[in-house]
Amino acid sequence: MSRFAEPMARLIDELKKLPGIGSKNAQRLAFHILRSSEADAEALAGAVRDVKAKLHLCSVCNNITDVDPCVYCSSATRNPRVVCVVEEPTNIAAIEKTRHYNGSYHVLHGSLSPLHGVGPEHLRLESLTRRVDAGEVDEVIIATNPTVEGEATAIYISNTVRRPNLKVTRIATGIPAGSDIEYADEVTMTKAMEGRREL
Amino acid sequence: MSRFAEPMARLIDELKKLPGIGSKNAQRLAFHILRSSEADAEALAGAVRDVKAKLHLCSVCNNITDVDPCVYCSSATRNPRVVCVVEEPTNIAAIEKTRHYNGSYHVLHGSLSPLHGVGPEHLRLESLTRRVDAGEVDEVIIATNPTVEGEATAIYISNTVRRPNLKVTRIATGIPAGSDIEYADEVTMTKAMEGRREL
Repeated sequence: MSRFAEPMARLIDELKKLPGIGSKNAQRLAFHILRSSEADAEALAGAVRDVKAKLHLCSVCNNITDVDPCVYCSSATRNPRVVCVVEEPTNIAAIEKTRHYNGSYHVLHGSLSPLHGVGPEHLRLESLTRRVDAGEVDEVIIATNPTVEGEATAIYISNTVRRPNLKVTRIATGIPAGSDIEYADEVTMTKAMEGRREL
Repeated sequence: MSRFAEPMARLIDELKKLPGIGSKNAQRLAFHILRSSEADAEALAGAVRDVKAKLHLCSVCNNITDVDPCVYCSSATRNPRVVCVVEEPTNIAAIEKTRHYNGSYHVLHGSLSPLHGVGPEHLRLESLTRRVDAGEVDEVIIATNPTVEGEATAIYISNTVRRPNLKVTRIATGIPAGSDIEYADEVTMTKAMEGRREL
């Protein structure tokens, strides 16, 4: 027999499925929801439902959006001929906060990882190759992570989208700004030396 | 009146001058030395004395060395025509562990920092400009830290050593290898985008 009434036990079980939420934490959250007003509970339930119902992928860049095309693809002030390829929708925020990038995006929703069974067929590349083939792109900036999977993905994409008159570039791997080269690992230091630029 | 006999108090005072060693720690170290064998105490005293007596700066690259020129400058297997400029002697270790660099070094022993009263006249640049003027150098790689001071120093050096037929390069600033662009700060992300290279 459950220690909690059935609706409570069910809420705790559902909350426990969330990442980083254990039994104790799920109990605390469930009791908080129980004690909160009906309006607050309804707002939470509605928000959970809407996030699945109203969000979908942008048909141009695969970003998560509630309008199609997404804000970046439909913006009149952004350059659609420069496309920055990222692994996840959250990576767009990392690039946007630089306030220096004014092109469009393409989200892969993953990176090549043979160990986890992720092959080229799992990457969402069709809409990118379609834009490239239609001659709508001048430069593809590959901003996948500088990890083993990200680098493999970068090489795969550069081979896939390579066309005459299309520039394919990779963001720089090197010492982070404000850091000390004394704390750089061997691979980063090697990449920083290889990627040196003329002053 | 001191709580310790005069030689003990003196040793504690001297140990307290070392960075990261407080009163308690200095006492513990001093008592350890008191209890250790005469040979150990003598070895420590000798090592302290020798580090000042036997080490000096390499006349070519300013690295700390017991032979002149230092092992990097006198090595027959290293290319003396490529010079990597670093801020501190410890930075050489960071570059050596990449196992990919085979040129020589130049140690500045600091970086430009007007706030701390460090101007161009405090950088040890004479031996570098001498090597450059003598036509002994093909490339100067500036590997100062990607901090405000390090970048200012890099610009100053590049203006100082610029000669016809001399390549002046700067190591890459960017996302560290194995990292996620989601965790990159704005400046690093901006530098990574600016420093993108064609694939």
